[in-house]
Amino acid sequence: MSKGGVFVVSGPSGSGKDTVLKGLFAENPDILFSISSITRAMRPGEREGEKYNFISREHFEEMIKNDLLLEHNVFVGNYYGTPRIPVEKAVSEGRDIIIEVDVNGAAQIRKKLPEAVTVFIMPPSFEELKRRLVGRGTESEELIEKRLRSALDEIKRAEEYDYIIVNDDAAAASQSLMSVIKACRLKTERQKNIINEVLEKC
Amino acid sequence: MSKGGVFVVSGPSGSGKDTVLKGLFAENPDILFSISSITRAMRPGEREGEKYNFISREHFEEMIKNDLLLEHNVFVGNYYGTPRIPVEKAVSEGRDIIIEVDVNGAAQIRKKLPEAVTVFIMPPSFEELKRRLVGRGTESEELIEKRLRSALDEIKRAEEYDYIIVNDDAAAASQSLMSVIKACRLKTERQKNIINEVLEKC
Repeated sequence: MSKGGVFVVSGPSGSGKDTVLKGLFAENPDILFSISSITRAMRPGEREGEKYNFISREHFEEMIKNDLLLEHNVFVGNYYGTPRIPVEKAVSEGRDIIIEVDVNGAAQIRKKLPEAVTVFIMPPSFEELKRRLVGRGTESEELIEKRLRSALDEIKRAEEYDYIIVNDDAAAASQSLMSVIKACRLKTERQKNIINEVLEKC
Repeated sequence: MSKGGVFVVSGPSGSGKDTVLKGLFAENPDILFSISSITRAMRPGEREGEKYNFISREHFEEMIKNDLLLEHNVFVGNYYGTPRIPVEKAVSEGRDIIIEVDVNGAAQIRKKLPEAVTVFIMPPSFEELKRRLVGRGTESEELIEKRLRSALDEIKRAEEYDYIIVNDDAAAASQSLMSVIKACRLKTERQKNIINEVLEKC
């Protein structure tokens, strides 16, 4: 069986990345989502194993020690990381899997898994990015400023990615992401079986 | 402006390549088709500049001498080739262009234009390939045998290509080819402008 593909998706706050991914998974239930391991407490509305696995600090540090994470970082005193095993399992079973991480996480994954395909979701313009961040209406001016600065820092590193998808329209951006995944499925290294299948019967 | 992409499409007799390309162009009139220069006489139903430019032997040899062909070959005493200028023009104008050639032509283009993306259209099985070649019903057994042998020789070289599209269903195969083209448009080297556009307004 041919191997699955690993797709690393990043995008700053205001890029609309979550909506793009939601649209992708709704139309392509065969694609897997990599569940992060984190050490912070569960928040209301969150469920174990949905987006995160909630694990202990000791367990996380054990995973670091045993090289069981493709990337990890610390945020406000808590660990966040991408477990290696589920990704390797998906690949060996021929399933495509998406890992959602920030630019630092993507850089770590690129080193450990050079065959990973990386995609950056980009807001269509600075004005639109600002509008989206302000438009939420629930956050302080200071927090919006902070998100904007961090978004711009991420955008500066977009050229580290294999693909850039401008999210002007979320449905179109989901389709674009699907085109990247489909094209990867058609790559010759994932299709060598068919050559032998056609030739061995002749 | 970002550059266009060059897509080299090959597929043996019986792969259904022509139908796949027809479907692609019908839905995507913005994509260009590279017109071959040939020295054989025009046949009934053919039109100058549609699929071929009919030129003289002297003209063709002049083009070879001046390195104005991306690939060329001789078939039954006549020259066939892909002119370089229209392809370079398309690329510089940001247009995608498709070159339809056989495995030898593709190998020549790969050397002259390493950035070209190569796609092999594959019949789904040996039985189906045979069925399609026999099914035309207009050709001698000898000619069918010859086409079959040459198809198998081409299939053996499919792994030289970047992508393989199995043509089980022509409409789906056209969509697959379009996914490859779309994904190439999303590559970061074709999207660097957007990074600067977003950053320069902040």
